Amino acid sequence: MNDTAELRSYSVDALQSIVTSIFLKAGLSSAQAAAVARTITAGERDNCKSHGIYRIEGNLRTLKAGKVNGEAEPQLVDDGTAVLRVDAACGFSPLAFEIGAPALVARTRRLGLAALVINDCTHFSALWPEIEVLTDQGLAALALCPSYASVAPTGGTRALLGTNPFAFGWPRPGQDPYVFDFATSAAARGEIELHRRAGKLLPEGWAINSHGVPTTDPEAALEGSLLPFGSHKGSAISTMIELLGAAMIGDLTSLEAREALGSMSLLPRHGELLIAFDPLRFSAGRSNPFARAETLFEAILDQGARLPSQRRYAARKAALKDGIALTNQERVMLNHLASAESETA
Amino acid sequence: MNDTAELRSYSVDALQSIVTSIFLKAGLSSAQAAAVARTITAGERDNCKSHGIYRIEGNLRTLKAGKVNGEAEPQLVDDGTAVLRVDAACGFSPLAFEIGAPALVARTRRLGLAALVINDCTHFSALWPEIEVLTDQGLAALALCPSYASVAPTGGTRALLGTNPFAFGWPRPGQDPYVFDFATSAAARGEIELHRRAGKLLPEGWAINSHGVPTTDPEAALEGSLLPFGSHKGSAISTMIELLGAAMIGDLTSLEAREALGSMSLLPRHGELLIAFDPLRFSAGRSNPFARAETLFEAILDQGARLPSQRRYAARKAALKDGIALTNQERVMLNHLASAESETA
Repeated sequence: MNDTAELRSYSVDALQSIVTSIFLKAGLSSAQAAAVARTITAGERDNCKSHGIYRIEGNLRTLKAGKVNGEAEPQLVDDGTAVLRVDAACGFSPLAFEIGAPALVARTRRLGLAALVINDCTHFSALWPEIEVLTDQGLAALALCPSYASVAPTGGTRALLGTNPFAFGWPRPGQDPYVFDFATSAAARGEIELHRRAGKLLPEGWAINSHGVPTTDPEAALEGSLLPFGSHKGSAISTMIELLGAAMIGDLTSLEAREALGSMSLLPRHGELLIAFDPLRFSAGRSNPFARAETLFEAILDQGARLPSQRRYAARKAALKDGIALTNQERVMLNHLASAESETA
Repeated sequence: MNDTAELRSYSVDALQSIVTSIFLKAGLSSAQAAAVARTITAGERDNCKSHGIYRIEGNLRTLKAGKVNGEAEPQLVDDGTAVLRVDAACGFSPLAFEIGAPALVARTRRLGLAALVINDCTHFSALWPEIEVLTDQGLAALALCPSYASVAPTGGTRALLGTNPFAFGWPRPGQDPYVFDFATSAAARGEIELHRRAGKLLPEGWAINSHGVPTTDPEAALEGSLLPFGSHKGSAISTMIELLGAAMIGDLTSLEAREALGSMSLLPRHGELLIAFDPLRFSAGRSNPFARAETLFEAILDQGARLPSQRRYAARKAALKDGIALTNQERVMLNHLASAESETA
């Protein structure tokens, strides 16, 4: 019996319920559990396997280690300026974002531009679920956060920067938004692990060994450091993320997060920065910003280039129609976590 | 007699006067001429030769072609929100920025975050001179603008995006700021021209030929298109710049700018977006953002990596002490432009 034959479909709601129950059992408050489950279910729905149910065990491990507060009650701090803040109170990030998002949308509509700072959160998700909440409201948005030190700056010899994701979204009325969300490292750590298992050499430019020397050997890379994408330009963008998403908002840099954590198998605590733009305010009636953007997208597609996130949207469409397909192994894992008292190490 | 023997030094003020006089003679208003000259002199002072006096002739050519208004009086539009706007009135960008910058600084201090849109400007300069005006005030800042279509999106076959510069600055009290400012293309068009003249092949990933096929032949590249830095990630960032710096603010995209201009030897008219952050407002007393940033910079330098713009700051220091050294050829060019009625084609 092959893996495909073992596939079974779950509706989005059914998977959401199962994942919620796992986190309730692990001691999360109902608000925290539902928010965490929404984010994980969205990842699985879009076939982003690295941000789907795969994330459950890491979250539970971090919880068991006492590094995240499952009952945290995030607080919105609003001083009336363009900078809104949610104190995540050392909980997971999704609930903190959900509490801050409506205020961010309203403030952006009023001022044209506003930021949401999330402080003291454990951030385990991709950034696109947050970006899409804002594009759904007709806003453009940027999001960024540090992670934990695993990337050497270009010209350097050891891990200092995080894989520091950078995401952007632009609303497309009547269709899925333009969204990109990528790590500012040349590759993810997981991709290096995949090369190691397959016995394949890495492409040039992905990593350095523990002596700071460029390497294509996956083993040496895993003991060494990743490199930024796009050489010194990517390194500069990753440094900017440390500055805006850590130093500026009073949260840990990737190096500090790793030192504070003492482990790469737990999730780091840090902050996040979101910036939202109201295109109708920015365009000030000069032209229709959404129509102008569509002309650009058409020109991209017309020459055979792609828009980002299309694979994700196709997976979503299929999942909403036919359900989310999980393998037998994935179902066993979910059942184990949902039934047993969570015995994760 | 070699080139070095022909060098002669000009003080920053002396060069500023000469360049101002050239633009006055060409018909710019005194405010426009002084602002353009400040930007060009700053480029020459920092030994950014591609943004120094080399730019004078392109500016004069664009003026003669009637594509820029030398007497434009930029107008600040302030509706009290976080989005300030300067209508450059089809003039050069430096005066428009100078008129908007104090308002941007004040609004950022009040709201924590603010944007400056510049509409309908001819932008010929690097972005760092503007970024440094904001870091000098203790603000962090982002700047971006389109240019004219010369870069194909990753996976595409022909020029659509501009070389779209992206710049960021962070203030470092008591010393030169952290500033990066780079094209989002893999290389500048000028670098391809240098390879052509030297008879050297291009590195992989810089360009495609006119059929959209990757090429390392500089001739074929010049007839084809540049490629973005960092593959699909750089392509996404460049697309974001078209969206935020053109579609959103009601100004021309790089493709539209090129079509409107009908020539690559003239300067395109488009808009620009600047975003400023007040780190003291964002940090909200949680920690000192400037001290935290210095810890990061020390960690970068400690492992032998570099901070951006250091070569520029070293050149500036030397220029402020010993003057700006110009070659005989450069002096002849300046004297010609300053004395003759500008006869540029």
